[in-house]
Amino acid sequence: MATFGSCSAAPSAGHPPICPAGAAGMVRPRLVLFGDSITEQSFRPGGWGAALADTYSRKADVVVRGYSGYNTRWALFLIHHIFPLGDLAPPLATTIFFGANDAALLGRTSERQHVPISEYKENLKKIVNHLKDCSKSMLIVLITPPPVDEEGRERFARSLYGEDARKLPERTNEMAGVYAGQCIELAREMHIPCINIWSKMQETDGWQKLYLSDGLHLTPEGNAVVHKEVVQTLRAAGLKPEIMPYDFPHHSNIDGSCPEKAFQ
Amino acid sequence: MATFGSCSAAPSAGHPPICPAGAAGMVRPRLVLFGDSITEQSFRPGGWGAALADTYSRKADVVVRGYSGYNTRWALFLIHHIFPLGDLAPPLATTIFFGANDAALLGRTSERQHVPISEYKENLKKIVNHLKDCSKSMLIVLITPPPVDEEGRERFARSLYGEDARKLPERTNEMAGVYAGQCIELAREMHIPCINIWSKMQETDGWQKLYLSDGLHLTPEGNAVVHKEVVQTLRAAGLKPEIMPYDFPHHSNIDGSCPEKAFQ
Repeated sequence: MATFGSCSAAPSAGHPPICPAGAAGMVRPRLVLFGDSITEQSFRPGGWGAALADTYSRKADVVVRGYSGYNTRWALFLIHHIFPLGDLAPPLATTIFFGANDAALLGRTSERQHVPISEYKENLKKIVNHLKDCSKSMLIVLITPPPVDEEGRERFARSLYGEDARKLPERTNEMAGVYAGQCIELAREMHIPCINIWSKMQETDGWQKLYLSDGLHLTPEGNAVVHKEVVQTLRAAGLKPEIMPYDFPHHSNIDGSCPEKAFQ
Repeated sequence: MATFGSCSAAPSAGHPPICPAGAAGMVRPRLVLFGDSITEQSFRPGGWGAALADTYSRKADVVVRGYSGYNTRWALFLIHHIFPLGDLAPPLATTIFFGANDAALLGRTSERQHVPISEYKENLKKIVNHLKDCSKSMLIVLITPPPVDEEGRERFARSLYGEDARKLPERTNEMAGVYAGQCIELAREMHIPCINIWSKMQETDGWQKLYLSDGLHLTPEGNAVVHKEVVQTLRAAGLKPEIMPYDFPHHSNIDGSCPEKAFQ
């Protein structure tokens, strides 16, 4: 064991460190991503969740709670488990990113996932109210469903099922826009931030193939748009990684000959 | 609100769901990545941490506890905070990935980070013993420091400091190999798995530029090697994502007309 100059000995694993790093080192704040497949897949290469984890590296943990195929009706079954009331360390912020499945059309192949528009808004409201019950200070961010490229969906269906593919779209961009509108309206009514990713993506020419891999899910470029918008929204609410504390000292602040000083 | 056929009503946010998803839905197991910058940066594009989170999507949370610049001596100050004794839900598995900084040479620009070889092994042993005290069943995986490309380090230093760059290497591949050897020996003595990434990477021609971005940190290809090795090691110990339970029902198991059945 090396000596530490005039400092006391290095901590051993058998005893608590001489200079505890404090509670800040024990509970790193959490950013929870709650949503459907677009959230579940956010740690794939180029994913917006992984990028967010890197943006908040050492400052906050990004926790993925994405459930492929889920709509807001099914999401309600999860909220008391994922966000228990009375949690002593509730998330610092949560994104709620549903609607792509709710907006699946009745009478088409994905109608099992359809949720009527009024119920979609009502369900979102219940989720937001539950999060508010969990924590008065939690930043709650709504994200609208992304746009839909119907041709891309059709190409994707044909690539899977060939001539047996459904002839009629199971989702349309117009309908996704209706659900996006209700999401925005709810955010306004509840005074919480909302990312209108449906509109934002359509501002760029060629969004259909640039941002969507199968007409619905995101390419790395589409993920980058979501990441940028989420970071902007978190920053606007004060969650700027550069001013958030490190969980433990930066290595440049550790004196090689007396490391325990940095951990006091 | 839509009706649910013969089923009872959908849960509301104001009351617990009728059919709770059970404790499995509340505590998803954790895989903790404990290490230095090579762990801290593992959620950058192509990073091995993000890829691991995707591999264990819906099955386990990947928690990054990477501390850039840290050696095993400084890591000892953190272990009681990151891995508190008495934690009722200790990690399912933890990777310990230190040594790149411990192996920095004395008398060179990074000597502040140097830890003597015998102390390195002793410190690793303390970390492993502490994790064993936290949980008898935790899978503990040691990872050796990666190889060092001295020319790559020199190029990197010159790109930062020009002619003022240090003339003598602050790390050598030979010394990293000595530390890797002690890591392997300790794993053998303690009967825990060890990934010899120092050797593994050098099996491939051109590893210097293929796997290392600045002679020390990993390219996306280098990250892919670490990801593959970690997954193989976890799988060999029984942590196969395809047989681990989903935290909540897969959407294909939800009956659209009676969703609560799936959550019973």
